[in-house]
Amino acid sequence: MMRVLDVMTRERCQMVNVTGEVSQAVKTSGVEKGVCLLFVPHTTAGIVINENADPDVTRDILSGLDAIVPRLKYRHMEGNSDAHIKAALAGQSLTLIIEDGDIQLGTWQGIYFCEFDGPRERKLFVRTMKAEE
Amino acid sequence: MMRVLDVMTRERCQMVNVTGEVSQAVKTSGVEKGVCLLFVPHTTAGIVINENADPDVTRDILSGLDAIVPRLKYRHMEGNSDAHIKAALAGQSLTLIIEDGDIQLGTWQGIYFCEFDGPRERKLFVRTMKAEE
Amino acid sequence: MMRVLDVMTRERCQMVNVTGEVSQAVKTSGVEKGVCLLFVPHTTAGIVINENADPDVTRDILSGLDAIVPRLKYRHMEGNSDAHIKAALAGQSLTLIIEDGDIQLGTWQGIYFCEFDGPRERKLFVRTMKAEE
Repeated sequence: MMRVLDVMTRERCQMVNVTGEVSQAVKTSGVEKGVCLLFVPHTTAGIVINENADPDVTRDILSGLDAIVPRLKYRHMEGNSDAHIKAALAGQSLTLIIEDGDIQLGTWQGIYFCEFDGPRERKLFVRTMKAEE
Repeated sequence: MMRVLDVMTRERCQMVNVTGEVSQAVKTSGVEKGVCLLFVPHTTAGIVINENADPDVTRDILSGLDAIVPRLKYRHMEGNSDAHIKAALAGQSLTLIIEDGDIQLGTWQGIYFCEFDGPRERKLFVRTMKAEE
Repeated sequence: MMRVLDVMTRERCQMVNVTGEVSQAVKTSGVEKGVCLLFVPHTTAGIVINENADPDVTRDILSGLDAIVPRLKYRHMEGNSDAHIKAALAGQSLTLIIEDGDIQLGTWQGIYFCEFDGPRERKLFVRTMKAEE
């Protein structure tokens, strides 16, 4: 079964740590060995993995992306093309390894839902699969 | 079975909407629940998801990438290092969720094959897998 | 079973070609048709696919990323926020197609472990899965 997680944001650009919710969804699925696919069904949001220890890192990533994406005269009339470009750079699909019934992350890694045009109510799709080896 | 789709481009940089072809390949596979892996076997092309409604968005993404990738004196003698960098940023691998026999995308999402050094004849690999849960 | 490959780097920023090790891990797994998931369990390293022929291309990609990531006054006291941003752009997860017992890459493609804050001893997780179609 595909699970759908809700993600709320309070700012225009925000990285929301969803590691706990994803881990819980995997444990609920009962898959011991396999993969977990995360998918963001939006065009101005993405999913990335980065440091879970110092919140300054996610602030620096958001500041860095602001500086990377140029202030051009964009054509799209909604005026949020910067958010579409950030979403294209971040990506909407992420695949994780499941071992011993949980996702396998590095010590310092967290999974972040990245909102680039909030605040909004968003969805995150989670699909678990058993490995056949 | 792995399917191979053909993608033709007419410009140096172009985002080609392949959502319909990918959806058709998934329906042909008969997989009801699982995942669909897209893979681009090229080094100056990539695959991204973004808005399918306003074509200005993809034009803005291509303009944005042009502005992001610096005009350095590159070493690679073919003179297309900007395209290799754009490909590295876009990515060549994308995994989608299959439910009810079709890929699950957001309302505004389309799948785009991104050519950064065209025009060329390209390939897109598609692999479908049943989920075992 | 999940396999763990060791990757050593000698410079702060380096792209290490791991194509041969990944191909060997897939052959060892005995999976004839399926997918191979690569996962980098670090927050200042990533995994990308790019040209395997001319080493100048990887040098140009590293130079390009240096120029793309802005020299801001970052908050993170470790002073390696540029590496965290590069890792977010590169991505830590990559999924490959397995056919005929090996990964399916384009002629010019190689798989590169990207170190952005080395030199360090790193790990690369490899999970193979049979396709059920």
